Amino acid sequence: MTEFELIERLFTRPSPGALVGNGDDAAVIAPSSGHAFVVTTDTLIEGRHFLPTLDPEKLGRRAVAVNLSDLAAMGAWPRFALLSLTLPQIDAPWVTAFARGLFDALGEHRVELVGGNTTRGPLAVGLTAMGEVPLSVGQPQVLLRSGAQPGDDVWVSGPLGDAGWACLCLLGEIDAVPTAEQIAHYECPVPRVDLGLALRPIATAAIDVSDGLVSEARHLARSSGVAIEIDATRIPTGLGALLSDERFAQAAWRALLATGDAYELLFTAPPGARARISELLAQQGLDGTRIGRVLAVAAEEAGMVRVLDARGEDRAAGRTGWDHFA
Amino acid sequence: MTEFELIERLFTRPSPGALVGNGDDAAVIAPSSGHAFVVTTDTLIEGRHFLPTLDPEKLGRRAVAVNLSDLAAMGAWPRFALLSLTLPQIDAPWVTAFARGLFDALGEHRVELVGGNTTRGPLAVGLTAMGEVPLSVGQPQVLLRSGAQPGDDVWVSGPLGDAGWACLCLLGEIDAVPTAEQIAHYECPVPRVDLGLALRPIATAAIDVSDGLVSEARHLARSSGVAIEIDATRIPTGLGALLSDERFAQAAWRALLATGDAYELLFTAPPGARARISELLAQQGLDGTRIGRVLAVAAEEAGMVRVLDARGEDRAAGRTGWDHFA
Repeated sequence: MTEFELIERLFTRPSPGALVGNGDDAAVIAPSSGHAFVVTTDTLIEGRHFLPTLDPEKLGRRAVAVNLSDLAAMGAWPRFALLSLTLPQIDAPWVTAFARGLFDALGEHRVELVGGNTTRGPLAVGLTAMGEVPLSVGQPQVLLRSGAQPGDDVWVSGPLGDAGWACLCLLGEIDAVPTAEQIAHYECPVPRVDLGLALRPIATAAIDVSDGLVSEARHLARSSGVAIEIDATRIPTGLGALLSDERFAQAAWRALLATGDAYELLFTAPPGARARISELLAQQGLDGTRIGRVLAVAAEEAGMVRVLDARGEDRAAGRTGWDHFA
Repeated sequence: MTEFELIERLFTRPSPGALVGNGDDAAVIAPSSGHAFVVTTDTLIEGRHFLPTLDPEKLGRRAVAVNLSDLAAMGAWPRFALLSLTLPQIDAPWVTAFARGLFDALGEHRVELVGGNTTRGPLAVGLTAMGEVPLSVGQPQVLLRSGAQPGDDVWVSGPLGDAGWACLCLLGEIDAVPTAEQIAHYECPVPRVDLGLALRPIATAAIDVSDGLVSEARHLARSSGVAIEIDATRIPTGLGALLSDERFAQAAWRALLATGDAYELLFTAPPGARARISELLAQQGLDGTRIGRVLAVAAEEAGMVRVLDARGEDRAAGRTGWDHFA
């Protein structure tokens, strides 16, 4: 078997949901009747989005997770994907493990890989994901960043900071040994697809926390023309004790507020939906909770985010998200 | 203006054809009523798909061309694109020129960029392109590789070999100076979008010549369960004299038959369509012509391709396409 045949065999799977699947110049797909497609693309670069030591199977899963997380934040049902894989060489066991992780993760969400390409170069994994949402009178029923209303609650779907903490430890930026659970948070993010679907008729706005709580909250607040105030003591996190540990507090706050990789959903909803959302989170086994509220502000202050700690001090000041060029 | 703002400003343009455009977690798009989407993705890696010396504006155009060429080979009308741009650093003049080339090429085909991402890493340009084709009784009206019939003519939409020749010269593999026209063929491929659309009801099969005539003909023949015989003397090319020049013949035949980058369409059609296709090529100002025919063969010989030169010798033997891992 040549390298070309190996690649073809590994990445060509049946796609019964496509009108024309893998193997021609392009794939042909159509959304279900009365639906529109939701499309997103993300590329994972070695050394920037994952460590060179990451197991290839986990890398395959991760590429799927980060893209489906964007679809989840739109309340879309994932359906199709295209892969752009750049490899320094064809290492058969490596590629086989990568494909296993990729297809396992796609399969869990019944997403079909309908095309892509493989080429030689520095390791990078690009995935384009397509989901769908219903159309109602021509308008897509979708979760946008722009719908948050003053008076809404702000929610997060699960713990923040643990993944970022693990990442900072593994990078050697924090002199601590991350727990296995923290590493799992970092290496194996879970896209909140079912939650996004269930939230579509309930939440007023949503975004996924890929680049840090404060920067994502700012994006959402700016798009919605509002401000957001978060009660830091309510943010679910495994870093609790570290936040007040003299030695680690600074790094822990950074991990909590300004590192990504959590891939939880940050969303807003009216207070009347509290019981329903709590029930939904419990049903799905998620440790999500209400962490803040949406405030009306003058247009020039739209996008303002405060994160108040137990002493009422704002911990958001000066925080930026993960800058891929920093 | 920060680097982030520069990128955002350069790549965020209005997309009136999208239901939700750039700026949220994902874009929302729907095919026109009664149509399906045709989707393809291609990544250009520096040093493999383009030379480091390539002008960034041309690189932007090239990324569009190679993807729209796949849509053209399906007979699809291009509509939307997503960009994954990986840059070693943000060099404002470079990125600005790249964006100009990209949007010029997209604009020529009225394609809207609806999303994407930019990250730091070794230079790579990934583009996902989406076009559309009509559905008829639920079936997409599309040009596949698999429809060629014994007795069909084999056509090519324009000159082959010139782009590959320029590439081999620029790489130093041939000790010759390419002409400006040859370099233009290589650096500025033109996707045959209008031709693909016009051929949809006429051609029986199509593929774009991105990796070399012989290997593309084999793909088409294998998909269709037929063999293809090409008359080398009929292939349109600017390399004519070089093919019989003692010093350059070997390299010229390689460029003609086994290098890509031409992005012309290779297609098949019944002999009854000859006049119509010739008229179409003339209308569109293309130097395309009929170069061979489709032969019936036993199943085990499907995919066989012969390219006969003036002496009746087969020049296809042993030719492979551009192998991105070679």
